[in-house]
Amino acid sequence: MASTAGQVIKCKAAVAWEAGKPLVIEEVEVAPPQAMEVRVKILFTSSATLTSTSGRPRYGSDTRVPRILGHEAAGIVESVGEGVTDVQPGDHVLPVFTGECKECDHCKSEESNMCSLLRIDPDRGPIYHFLGTSTFSEYTVVHVGCLAKINPLAPLETVCVLSCGISTGFGATVNVAKPKKGSSVAVFGLGAVGLAAAEGARVSGASRIIGVDLNSDRFEQAKKFGVTEFVNPKDHDRPFKRFVIAEMTGGGVDRSVECTGNINAMISAFECVHDGWGVAVLVGVPHKDDVFKTSPVNFLCERTLKGTFYGNYKPRSDIPGVVEKYMNKEMELEKFITHEVPFSEINKAFDLMFRGEGLRCLIRMEN
Amino acid sequence: MASTAGQVIKCKAAVAWEAGKPLVIEEVEVAPPQAMEVRVKILFTSSATLTSTSGRPRYGSDTRVPRILGHEAAGIVESVGEGVTDVQPGDHVLPVFTGECKECDHCKSEESNMCSLLRIDPDRGPIYHFLGTSTFSEYTVVHVGCLAKINPLAPLETVCVLSCGISTGFGATVNVAKPKKGSSVAVFGLGAVGLAAAEGARVSGASRIIGVDLNSDRFEQAKKFGVTEFVNPKDHDRPFKRFVIAEMTGGGVDRSVECTGNINAMISAFECVHDGWGVAVLVGVPHKDDVFKTSPVNFLCERTLKGTFYGNYKPRSDIPGVVEKYMNKEMELEKFITHEVPFSEINKAFDLMFRGEGLRCLIRMEN
Repeated sequence: MASTAGQVIKCKAAVAWEAGKPLVIEEVEVAPPQAMEVRVKILFTSSATLTSTSGRPRYGSDTRVPRILGHEAAGIVESVGEGVTDVQPGDHVLPVFTGECKECDHCKSEESNMCSLLRIDPDRGPIYHFLGTSTFSEYTVVHVGCLAKINPLAPLETVCVLSCGISTGFGATVNVAKPKKGSSVAVFGLGAVGLAAAEGARVSGASRIIGVDLNSDRFEQAKKFGVTEFVNPKDHDRPFKRFVIAEMTGGGVDRSVECTGNINAMISAFECVHDGWGVAVLVGVPHKDDVFKTSPVNFLCERTLKGTFYGNYKPRSDIPGVVEKYMNKEMELEKFITHEVPFSEINKAFDLMFRGEGLRCLIRMEN
Repeated sequence: MASTAGQVIKCKAAVAWEAGKPLVIEEVEVAPPQAMEVRVKILFTSSATLTSTSGRPRYGSDTRVPRILGHEAAGIVESVGEGVTDVQPGDHVLPVFTGECKECDHCKSEESNMCSLLRIDPDRGPIYHFLGTSTFSEYTVVHVGCLAKINPLAPLETVCVLSCGISTGFGATVNVAKPKKGSSVAVFGLGAVGLAAAEGARVSGASRIIGVDLNSDRFEQAKKFGVTEFVNPKDHDRPFKRFVIAEMTGGGVDRSVECTGNINAMISAFECVHDGWGVAVLVGVPHKDDVFKTSPVNFLCERTLKGTFYGNYKPRSDIPGVVEKYMNKEMELEKFITHEVPFSEINKAFDLMFRGEGLRCLIRMEN
């Protein structure tokens, strides 16, 4: 690979020319990495992308096109820019949409992963770049702080889902909600992130995992992720709130994880936890004008509400360990990948996603 | 004392005949304790009582009079009812407005102190009884689960403030907010509970303790409790929210503790904590119709909101240890007691409280 170092690489990328329209595969030129940057050959990416409720890809200011989307991926370092010492050509890496500079207050805090320098920002980075990663391209350039260097023996076509969604859901449960063995956990939203949260509850030894979703078709699949009971809010005619789950559990669940981003689900997820010890964790991204409303007495009765971002994982420090967890069979990943398409058929992956079919569609770059 | 066991005791009590009117000291009859009950000779009590924003004592349904108020106190066991094995006549005790049965799910949980059997309920217990304690009486009868048996060497005239307010504020900081050494803590409301929260921050080694109060006269006194900086929201013309404190601290405080019960202060206390790691703790009791409103993005940026009740202390299991903390000079209590009156002048204690003067007024039962 070293033969291309320092040169512009011509390769294929899927370009978004207009919001809501199919991506177009075309030849692009990828510049060599500058200081603290790394050029990565992407081998696998996925259909995961931030989507608006309208089902259209959402990428910062929607007008900023053309643009190369994609942020959940796995690849191999092709070359590195000046000052990069942590990775070298040939290293296996997962690009991550949020970074870790290792120098700011957040990176130095044990509690935060919200790096001041490289925190998620759809509009940060070169114009037309996406979430600091732009992985729908055979080659991409990212800041070294946005790369997790992982075990070279890990299968990239599987661990690529740890680059975003699965770490987000899994970490929300194991790092933030922290259910105890034998406890009850409610998961709101049974898409890939919610099922990863359920997987985290299963791995933690929760004895009851209650899945909540408006689409009952998702319930069967959810059983593979440890979900033991299902609630479809549509099946209950009174205001959903905490009542249904509180009745099922004798006062509320021990933990809940909200993965839909719907404001009413967020409020229900909080109000359904048990007084005295219940912890609710918000993962889903709400609409910017949403307002969270609840009676303050719900807090005073010793309930806790937290939010998390990328499962509280620091990309460089923590993700290599999550890959090891998979290698040691402490968590399962294959079941999240329900479909696969070659890069040339990338738009099929979005069709599946917008129809709500399957969980992750793997996009294989080398045809 | 054993000579009175099994007999009705005639003694003096301060009776509330009408909300907002002075208490009237009269002779009452105190029955012997029944099963699981304990009769306590009260030596000291205080003016602490739940008050409504109108400045009138609030005691459950306000119409339930006559009634004997009072719940922060210290005394000595006079006699015990059937089945009581934990305390015996002569033991020094603090009555607590919430109890610990040691058998329910909450008592068995390490995380909760919200006993299902003896949780605070202004309307629980014999009619005309108050918060399970009714301490404005020379003798009172309480459930054994509402008594903390303490070190007999501890001065009752001082440790009586641990029976409610000071434990509530101190515990909110040390048990729930848990500030680290060198961290910043904002305390909303500089009454006795808020200053106890500040004392908790001081003892925890916080390097900045920012006191927030609408009454600037309280700032001088607050310095004795470790408060290093002061903010009066009235001095800031734009919406208070998190901005003032965020600017003072480069993004927000590490911890905040809300001790006013004002809904806007609650929201500010949450929004003023730092993203990534900030934790806000609600202590103050809101109006029942209040609604807590905030943007859910404030949670997603890894802020935590918790509420607490009696500082998360279990009355029987934990309060004896808090008394030891005072005995070992790990916390200071004398500075909370700013006034003292004999029982015959109990109404003066309320006059002080309603004027916002001082912190705790000790009421000495033996004249």
